[in-house]
Amino acid sequence: MSDNDTILISPKEMQERFTSILDELNFTKEKSNAIAKIFTENSIDGIYTHGVNRFPAFVSYVKLGHVRPDAVPVLRHKFGAIEQWDGQQGPGVLNAIHATETAMELARKNGIGCVALANTNHWIRGGTYGWQAAKAGFVFIGITNTISVMPAWGAIDSKLGNNPFVMALPYEDEAIVLDMAMSQYSYGAMELSAYKKEKLAVPGGYNDKDEMTNDPAEILDTRRALPIGYWKGAGMSLLLDIFTTILSGGFAGHEITKAGIETNISQLFIAIDISKLSNHSLIAKTVNEIIEDYHQSIPADASKKITYPGERVLQTRKKNSTNGIPVLKKVWDQIMEL
Amino acid sequence: MSDNDTILISPKEMQERFTSILDELNFTKEKSNAIAKIFTENSIDGIYTHGVNRFPAFVSYVKLGHVRPDAVPVLRHKFGAIEQWDGQQGPGVLNAIHATETAMELARKNGIGCVALANTNHWIRGGTYGWQAAKAGFVFIGITNTISVMPAWGAIDSKLGNNPFVMALPYEDEAIVLDMAMSQYSYGAMELSAYKKEKLAVPGGYNDKDEMTNDPAEILDTRRALPIGYWKGAGMSLLLDIFTTILSGGFAGHEITKAGIETNISQLFIAIDISKLSNHSLIAKTVNEIIEDYHQSIPADASKKITYPGERVLQTRKKNSTNGIPVLKKVWDQIMEL
Repeated sequence: MSDNDTILISPKEMQERFTSILDELNFTKEKSNAIAKIFTENSIDGIYTHGVNRFPAFVSYVKLGHVRPDAVPVLRHKFGAIEQWDGQQGPGVLNAIHATETAMELARKNGIGCVALANTNHWIRGGTYGWQAAKAGFVFIGITNTISVMPAWGAIDSKLGNNPFVMALPYEDEAIVLDMAMSQYSYGAMELSAYKKEKLAVPGGYNDKDEMTNDPAEILDTRRALPIGYWKGAGMSLLLDIFTTILSGGFAGHEITKAGIETNISQLFIAIDISKLSNHSLIAKTVNEIIEDYHQSIPADASKKITYPGERVLQTRKKNSTNGIPVLKKVWDQIMEL
Repeated sequence: MSDNDTILISPKEMQERFTSILDELNFTKEKSNAIAKIFTENSIDGIYTHGVNRFPAFVSYVKLGHVRPDAVPVLRHKFGAIEQWDGQQGPGVLNAIHATETAMELARKNGIGCVALANTNHWIRGGTYGWQAAKAGFVFIGITNTISVMPAWGAIDSKLGNNPFVMALPYEDEAIVLDMAMSQYSYGAMELSAYKKEKLAVPGGYNDKDEMTNDPAEILDTRRALPIGYWKGAGMSLLLDIFTTILSGGFAGHEITKAGIETNISQLFIAIDISKLSNHSLIAKTVNEIIEDYHQSIPADASKKITYPGERVLQTRKKNSTNGIPVLKKVWDQIMEL
């Protein structure tokens, strides 16, 4: 038996297990269900790092008091189609679902709606809110700041966050959802590759000779992870942090980093109600045509399909819903002990 | 005398020369002045590829009828804080300035404002509108689609546009402006490097052996330019195209590409009026603190300063305003013959 042994857990069993753990942490039944549902859905979608694998860390944050089970978001300020909310260190998932719903409600009235959220916690998987808004018929942009994990371009010390950026829109009965962090690889992904003794597909950072490398172990040593597009993603990361911070009135990445714990983060949610546009009846057809053209791309490797962001999630979702969710046995053992 | 000889042209002389050329192309005096001003300002800022070097191509587009001197943008639809405009193939610079102004006006009333613009022309330099909005006190996001210039991730034929993405905000008396295309390098930049027989700083595309390379000549052969962040920038490029297209009701990148001429493009402008936020009096201080922390980054090369997006523009602006704008002599000769 190895560390990589997996077992299959049914979505129902996973969600029930998560719920029962959360029930004991002073979440209301409604909140337990909602949080357990998101962690389970992320796992069904194959985003295990932001699903089942992450659940123990979330529980630990609750136990340490960084996530407050009883907190609910509070409206601090409103002007037209923009609202500023305080997440009060409540569960990031629930705060973000609420903020997305509120941005959509503002968009129903104003065409576009914007919610900035201060003092919240990790939203776990940004794509969750992209799917939420897109399935409800909205175009969506979501941004979060994070603790610092990578250097500015040309620098060696980490001053920039991963700051995931989400874009989403309805497509057929599902959605197209881009959910991208500003680092080329997360530390989690690099740790996994290093553990498996695999190289990264593209350079992920610097080694101690100031050279770019695709050896994850070397990057884990230097902690000099690369932003996407080098100077471009570094710049975008900085701007994403500033946008979330000043629009929410919350904490900036450097303040979160100094506090040493990734809590009290700042987020932004923008929704556009496409049913209010003059061309609303043509939009589905337009998106279909764009994707049809995109799918006609000629692959470099004829055996590989060219996919749009979120496309492979649908296949994984179907498979895991039917067969059960593959979970590392050691992770599930840990969850059974929580 | 070589092809790289430069001469110094004063901003006044450049703007006057541009204006007199435009005057003869059936632009009103007001429009000639406004367009000449933007091309000159982009040159003062050191963005020569989107300033003086680009001016002859703009004139050619006007002469070929792709840019219509007499066209003005027309409001097609309005709902709350969102408006859809038709650029009527007018000059992209003026349409984009108008759209930015309109987004700000909507934001003054609604906190946030969104203008989608169909059937416009190349906005030349996206940063222009970032500076415009930020200097007026707004947070800004701007997006344009373009003709296809790079393949989807894993593909060999170009189905994706450069689709520049702009983020901007006020900073001190100036602005922080990120203006980034989705390709790691523009073809213009790669042509220049190939001409100078220089390698690219990071891989910019594929060679004909299906390997990533930083030899620009090899990439110019394959036309397989790399998106920023590989699969990430490819996905973002696709989403940026879809957003601009469906929100404006205009043409998608694949349609522009099939038409073979980069006209009738689609754009999106979002402005947020930060004076309407509860924390408005603290925002300048917050941004200062973020930049102060960012500037404390430890550079890998001690002689190099870590700069935020737009920072070096200010230095170039000052220098070129005082000393004159360095222009390739062959470019200025061409402009004198227009």
